[in-house]
Amino acid sequence: MAQDQLDEKGLSRRKIVVGGGVLAAGVALGQLGGLMPSAEAKTASATDWPWPYEKLDPVKTAEICYEEWYRVFCGCAVINSVFMQLKEKIGEPYASFPSDAFVFLEGGQVGWGTVCGSPAGANIVANLIIGPRIAGSPDGHHMSTDIMQWYSEASMPVFTPKKPRIDPAKIPHTVSESPLCHISVGKWMKAANLPLKSKERKDRCARVAASTAYRLVEMLNDWKDGNYESTSTFSAPKEHGITGQFNCMECHGDDVPETPTGKKS
Amino acid sequence: MAQDQLDEKGLSRRKIVVGGGVLAAGVALGQLGGLMPSAEAKTASATDWPWPYEKLDPVKTAEICYEEWYRVFCGCAVINSVFMQLKEKIGEPYASFPSDAFVFLEGGQVGWGTVCGSPAGANIVANLIIGPRIAGSPDGHHMSTDIMQWYSEASMPVFTPKKPRIDPAKIPHTVSESPLCHISVGKWMKAANLPLKSKERKDRCARVAASTAYRLVEMLNDWKDGNYESTSTFSAPKEHGITGQFNCMECHGDDVPETPTGKKS
Repeated sequence: MAQDQLDEKGLSRRKIVVGGGVLAAGVALGQLGGLMPSAEAKTASATDWPWPYEKLDPVKTAEICYEEWYRVFCGCAVINSVFMQLKEKIGEPYASFPSDAFVFLEGGQVGWGTVCGSPAGANIVANLIIGPRIAGSPDGHHMSTDIMQWYSEASMPVFTPKKPRIDPAKIPHTVSESPLCHISVGKWMKAANLPLKSKERKDRCARVAASTAYRLVEMLNDWKDGNYESTSTFSAPKEHGITGQFNCMECHGDDVPETPTGKKS
Repeated sequence: MAQDQLDEKGLSRRKIVVGGGVLAAGVALGQLGGLMPSAEAKTASATDWPWPYEKLDPVKTAEICYEEWYRVFCGCAVINSVFMQLKEKIGEPYASFPSDAFVFLEGGQVGWGTVCGSPAGANIVANLIIGPRIAGSPDGHHMSTDIMQWYSEASMPVFTPKKPRIDPAKIPHTVSESPLCHISVGKWMKAANLPLKSKERKDRCARVAASTAYRLVEMLNDWKDGNYESTSTFSAPKEHGITGQFNCMECHGDDVPETPTGKKS
């Protein structure tokens, strides 16, 4: 199905509607052999949202993610598990996206234990494909809130690969109650009584990444079918007047500070 | 200066050396009018590291970042403040990088208060330009550790724009001792006694983003000159056997858990 639309300069621009996505003409021409100047083709593909998407198999995605973890670690593995397949199925803008640059998401950003690379990578994928909320759809933003809450509440790792490197019986399941690497990994290390450098911890994190990629693709497939509905029930800014997670007392104890209201008493 | 090199397939590939960076032939041709098939030009530019870089003015970068914050918020503002200038100076791969997709970094990833978007955005920029540590240089990884520590120790906001939207006298300076949005913003809100929704808090965060962009460009300029040396002095995995920050007792109090050693006693 094709349709003509006027762009912001009032020029007619042919767009090809593919399922839920819109493929700009420049992309299609680019894939036919580079007839368009590359800069124009690239602009049309990577900064026009949503990016073209085809439904993926969650199990296959998780298996790819599990293997990629041992090359590029959590965040990058989640990105690559989706983009490597879409590069094969669709081409641009996936083919030229510099995914490997996101290795630094490892260890909650270069070992600092902040947001786990798995939800961070999933958030990047969701917002690259659907686009930022300022570009017309809030679905990427909502999908990220869903990923953060799902990750915090899941008994991880959820996914078991067909050929695990470590006996699954040696990998306990833990609920992090947080999207932070430090807390997610720390609770698992305590339950397993194993150090950060252990093979079991590494395989646990590879499986956490695979689990997250699985869940992400389930949501993206629903979105592609027009059936995506956000499931997250929590917003710290709305409920507590500050950015944050839901379990204040885990860090603050009984001494949870009141947030300022700005109202003069 | 130009030189012929053999690529991984043993084929001769003409590369143009520009200062500290290497510009693949496909990029140059692409910029001359799309003579190369777009997919090939894109692959050569975005996934070959390092990306071409020209030194930027830290003050100008910070001013752009401050303005961009009011459009795309912290993480995306840091990315755009650098990439918008390099798009003008160099072109690809900056021109087609989908920076706006990173609006979701706001509020420590969609309001969850994890890593502040400013260092998260700076880490993305450093690792996109220099490349991941698995691609040959550890400088992007090290620059991220520097950013995380510098952000935690700085009296924020460091940078004052020429035309501040809010009287700087109304913006107290605070040291977060953490790269987490929740803690950085929370300590500032406590010091200012102002809520998350206040104009002052928003301008403080715009200036924190601008400060981070300023520091990032200082480091990238040093790197371009061959003078970059990592300044970070801390590694939680090495020192504490777990990913994390340096101030364990701020969350744990006196009850800081021992990390398992895996050694049988």
